[in-house]
Formats: sequence, structure tokens, C-alpha cells
Amino acid sequence: MDRIRFDLLGCDGRARRGELTTGHGKVQTPAFMPVGTRGSVKTLGSEDLEALGAEIALANTYHLYLRPGVERVAEHGGLHRFMSWQGALLTDSGGYQVHSLADLNVVDDEGVTFRSHLDGSAHRFTPESTTEIQARIGADVIMCLDQCLAAGSERAAHAVAVRRTSAWARRCRDVHGVHFRTYDYPQALFGIVQGGVDRELRQQSSAEIVALDFPGYAIGGLAVGEPKPAMLDTVAWQDELLPRERPRYLMGVGYPEDLVRCVSRGVDLFDCVLPTRNARNGMAFTRRGRVVIKNAAYAGDGEALDPECACWVCQRYSRAYIRHLHQAGEILGLRLVTYHNLFFYLWLMRAMGAAIEAKRFDAWQAEFFAGYSVT
Amino acid sequence: MDRIRFDLLGCDGRARRGELTTGHGKVQTPAFMPVGTRGSVKTLGSEDLEALGAEIALANTYHLYLRPGVERVAEHGGLHRFMSWQGALLTDSGGYQVHSLADLNVVDDEGVTFRSHLDGSAHRFTPESTTEIQARIGADVIMCLDQCLAAGSERAAHAVAVRRTSAWARRCRDVHGVHFRTYDYPQALFGIVQGGVDRELRQQSSAEIVALDFPGYAIGGLAVGEPKPAMLDTVAWQDELLPRERPRYLMGVGYPEDLVRCVSRGVDLFDCVLPTRNARNGMAFTRRGRVVIKNAAYAGDGEALDPECACWVCQRYSRAYIRHLHQAGEILGLRLVTYHNLFFYLWLMRAMGAAIEAKRFDAWQAEFFAGYSVT
Repeated sequence: MDRIRFDLLGCDGRARRGELTTGHGKVQTPAFMPVGTRGSVKTLGSEDLEALGAEIALANTYHLYLRPGVERVAEHGGLHRFMSWQGALLTDSGGYQVHSLADLNVVDDEGVTFRSHLDGSAHRFTPESTTEIQARIGADVIMCLDQCLAAGSERAAHAVAVRRTSAWARRCRDVHGVHFRTYDYPQALFGIVQGGVDRELRQQSSAEIVALDFPGYAIGGLAVGEPKPAMLDTVAWQDELLPRERPRYLMGVGYPEDLVRCVSRGVDLFDCVLPTRNARNGMAFTRRGRVVIKNAAYAGDGEALDPECACWVCQRYSRAYIRHLHQAGEILGLRLVTYHNLFFYLWLMRAMGAAIEAKRFDAWQAEFFAGYSVT
Repeated sequence: MDRIRFDLLGCDGRARRGELTTGHGKVQTPAFMPVGTRGSVKTLGSEDLEALGAEIALANTYHLYLRPGVERVAEHGGLHRFMSWQGALLTDSGGYQVHSLADLNVVDDEGVTFRSHLDGSAHRFTPESTTEIQARIGADVIMCLDQCLAAGSERAAHAVAVRRTSAWARRCRDVHGVHFRTYDYPQALFGIVQGGVDRELRQQSSAEIVALDFPGYAIGGLAVGEPKPAMLDTVAWQDELLPRERPRYLMGVGYPEDLVRCVSRGVDLFDCVLPTRNARNGMAFTRRGRVVIKNAAYAGDGEALDPECACWVCQRYSRAYIRHLHQAGEILGLRLVTYHNLFFYLWLMRAMGAAIEAKRFDAWQAEFFAGYSVT
């Protein structure tokens, strides 16, 4: 195959059911991408991702670039082979981690200069370099370098970020267009829209990014501290500002309830560390809401994390045992909740997809929230 | 079934091939017991133990007694149900952990008083109480409370420990004999021989413990710092001092080469944290010897941890990837080496069993050591 393809299979209201065809299999959307920061979804192996039925995972360019290094990954035949994962992979540009993790980072119109959080060494990412890095890592989907601001930044700063993000997107597209064929499968480049929660800036950013004609678009700059209603409004605006026939990826979202609300507003793809990071802090997500497993109430609880869940963790282990593992600091406890949470997230996406196909997404959504406690 | 049974199926020289029949399945010996300190073999679930083909695992009474507590385990139907493990379980008495972990411990003829390493709370183990605790935890094999001294203790101290261990063994046997039927499967009590590396004390301890007629015997007090030749000599003496028709369990041993040498000296059962603890420090055990995965030499190594190993870790992942996981502090790295190491240990035990059955243990041993580097 030459290019990654997206087929919009059906809609129900704004909710969309689609299929992304990559050189590493098809991805049914709406889809959630587990986050494999450093080439591993924490506590899980690729055999676990397969068992979960995951079709696409995300890896962080910033982390892999610093360790083990792009050369290392490329010499092993790319990240798929390195981590022994046959499904699709999306990499971020590294810009967000530079912003959130690097010891020092300075953004200018040419790119971003930063110091490694590992050893303080100096590095620079440009639109050109991060595109090439991602291509060499071997992602099926490469993301443009963008500038993401914290919620509450001045409108003027957002305007600069929008302008810069558009200029960088063009540079990413140009270098991607000429690129060297690193691997024998297509590597698509997705654009990213910025603009905070300002409608005009979102319109401007969307128009500029869409004009560059990417095969997919990400909604960036959300889930960075803005109020939830503002995020949901912005996602709804984006639905109208992005082309129907291309996939939309909402970056860094979120809780199960956020996924449902954003699918209902037209999002196809998600990634977030919540199901995995919170798992390691002992928070399980279930059809009824959150279970904070360290609570003393679970010490004698012989039920599964989620009694309605079909995953092997819920078939096999009790809340009492998993609580004991977390109290005792046993690694198995982190793994069990991680696996369950991702199983739940992937179940949720499939359930939404089925409801969209059946043209009953609103009814499904009402049923879901009737049984689900958000707190 | 009423009692745990041991059948000696065959011998080759001193090496023995046997079968321990418990209420939780048969255990083919020679066997290695993975250590599930707090009700989990670190990084692994019971589904992993099943996949490994483990038939028996060990749990630590001291840890489970402190957390989650004996009541908690018992209320869930015992440790098998709590950890969802259908194979056999052996618990230690807790005496060794009191000695090595507790903040303060005082041994007298009645028992041992100690402070929890978790919260400093004061506790007391007696022969009677640890026997009852283990029975209520639900072990298939319960160990007598013994007194284990560090290598290099005075002979007089060893003599006191031998006398005390014999007196405690009788008390364990007496309370075990009258015990309450906690579970619907047999719970055997094994005696423990002490005496350091002193032949006379080993003779005395063996005679006193064997006179109490236990269904199995442990060789205690070794692998505590004595020179390796002294350990091997002591194990060889024990072969002559213990009844042929009962299983022999060498506590806390050891490296792969130790297992081979001790099987050749008549040992049936082993437990040790080495394959799991060293895995977490990045040491893999292979047919060729040890692989310290953090070594820079492995950064570009696309081979499996052990190219001759059939485990799924070796089928799927390269040394380079596993090294990356260890360098990055990824939990998956700990899990992968743990699984492989236990697979190797269990393979080793089965290989020895097959060699004994084929009456070619010496030849097998020579072949093993010809390919294996001890350093």
C-alpha cells in the first residue's frame, strides 16, 4: 500500500464510526491509543496489547530520541520490531514533552531548544528534525511539531502559537513530502490545530492547517487545564472546522466520560496516560465509575474490580487481593489494574462504535451515564 | 485425600526423581519453588505461574502475617483462593524473615519476639503459633519454626540452635497433630534440620528431627554465608542422614549450578529468590551462564536473552529491547527477565528429572557444565 487510508463507515449525529488502514493493520474508530511512552505501555508487553485487542499504540518521540536513541531504534528495524509490536504506531512530535519535562526549553520561530531531563545535555527540535526522527523511529502516523500553550495563556500568546504552528506544519509537510523511504510501509503525517479555547483562533488555525491538506488532523492544546465545558465546546467547534472525510485525533484526552462526550462531538482517535498512570496509583475505571483500590472498604471485597468486565483480571482476581498488592507495593498490582483499565477503555470504544453503527448512540450514551458515576 | 504423599520414582546415583502428591496437584521432583513472598511472585500473576508450568510456589508467613494478616487471607478461603492459584503452596515458618528483616528480635526457648519492619509493632512467634498461622493461611506444606544461625556462628551457638530446633519441631508436630481441620485438603508439616556445616551437629539434628517422623525434611541453615564446598559437603552428609522415602527440601538455594550439584547430592525441592530478585537487577540466567543485561555490549544485540530458550520472552524480545527497558526503568523489563529466569530454572529441573529417569544424570551434568559459565 502507498498511503494510509481513512474510511468513514457511518455516522450517528456527530458521532463517527470509521476505519484507518495502515501498513500495520486496520484501526477501527473510534479508537483509544494506549501510551507506550518509552516503547512499552508501562507494565505491559506487546503480547498484552495483542490480548487487549489494541490496534494502535502511541510512543513518545522525546523519550525514545533521548533513550535508547533514534539510531538504536532504526538499527533494529524500527520501533515495531524493537518492541515486537505488529499493530499500528503513532508518535507525537516530542514538542509536548519538551514543554512539560525538559529542564529548560526555549521556543523560537525556528524550533525549540531544550536540555534533557536525564543528563542535562542540550538538544534542538525543529519541524524538519522531529519529522525525520519520527520517520526513522518508524511510526505509521507522524505528528507535526506544534506549539502547545498552558490554559490561561494570553490570547496574544495563543495567536503567536497558532501562527508558529501553521508555519511549522508547512515545514513538516515539505520535509515529509520529500522524504527518503525509510521503511516499506506508508508513514502518514498528521497536522495539529491549536488556538486554545478561543473560537476565532481555532477557526484561523483550522483553516491554515486544513489548507495544507494532511491525511489526518489532531486537536491539540486541550486537556491542558481549561474548564471541561470550554474543552467540550472547542471540540464541537472543531467538528465543523475539520474535513469530514479525514480522521480527527483529540490529543491527551481523557477520562471515560470525556471519551464518550468527545466521540459524540465527532472525535475518532484518542490517547491519554490516565488509564495507565492512574492504574499505577490504584485507580480502576469500571462501568459504574472509579474504584480507588487502596480504600479500606475493599480489603474484604471478594468481587472483581468490575463485576461486569470480561477481562482476565476481573475473571481471576478480587478487589481484596489487588488492594493487598497495592498496599504491599507489589508490581503485579500495577499490572493488573493497568490491564483492566485498558480493557475497559478499549471496550468502551468498541461499545461506542457498535452504538454508532446501530444508529443509537444517544440512547447508548444515556444508558452509559445512567449507570456511571463521574466522581 | 488424607495425607500428602511422596513417591520416589527412580534414582541415578544419589540424584532422585520423585512425585509429591498434594491436595493441589502433583509436583514432579526435582522441583524449584518460585518465591511468592507476599502472595505474588514479584511481577508475575498466577496465570504466569501456570504458563511456566510451576506446580508449587512458596509464600512467606512473616510477610502475610503482617500484611494483609492471617484473618484476611483465611476469610477469602485461604491463600490459594486469595491469589487465585490452584497449584501447591509451601509456606516458611516466618523465623528466617524475623531474623533477617524484623527491627528487633529476641529468641528464647519459648519462641521469638520481634518488631514489625513495617510499623514497629511488637509480635511473638512460637512453634505453636506459626504452625497454626500457616495452617490458617492454607499451605499444603507447613514448615516447623526453627532457629537458623549465620555462617560463622560459634559451635556452641549452633549446638543451642540444634537443641532448640528439635524442641520446637516436637511442639510444632504436637500442635499440628491435634489441629482443627481448617481446609478440605491435607496440610503436611515438614521438619527442618540445623547444625551449620558441622558434621556431628548435622548428625545429631537429623537424628532428633527424623525421630519425630515428619512426611518431609528440610535442610536448613545453609546458603547463609558458608563457603560453597562446605555447603555441598553438608548436603552430601544430609543425603545419608535423611530417610530415602521422604522428600528433602534445601532451603534458600540457589544459582543454577548449585541446583545441579545439590540434585546430584540427593535434594528434591528448592526455593530461592535468586532467579526473581536478580532478574529485577537485570541478571538473566541462560544455558550458557549469566547475562547482565545492562551491559553496554547488549545495546545493539538482537538475539534473545537465551537463544536456546523456548520461553515466550526469548521468542519475542531482543536483549537490546530488554536492556533498553532496564535502562529506562520500565517495569516490563523486570517482568520479562523474571519470567525467563523462572522458565530457565523450571526447564533445568525438568531436564535433570529426565536425565535421572534415563539413568544418565552424570553425563547430563557434564554436558550442562561444559556449556555453562559459572561467572
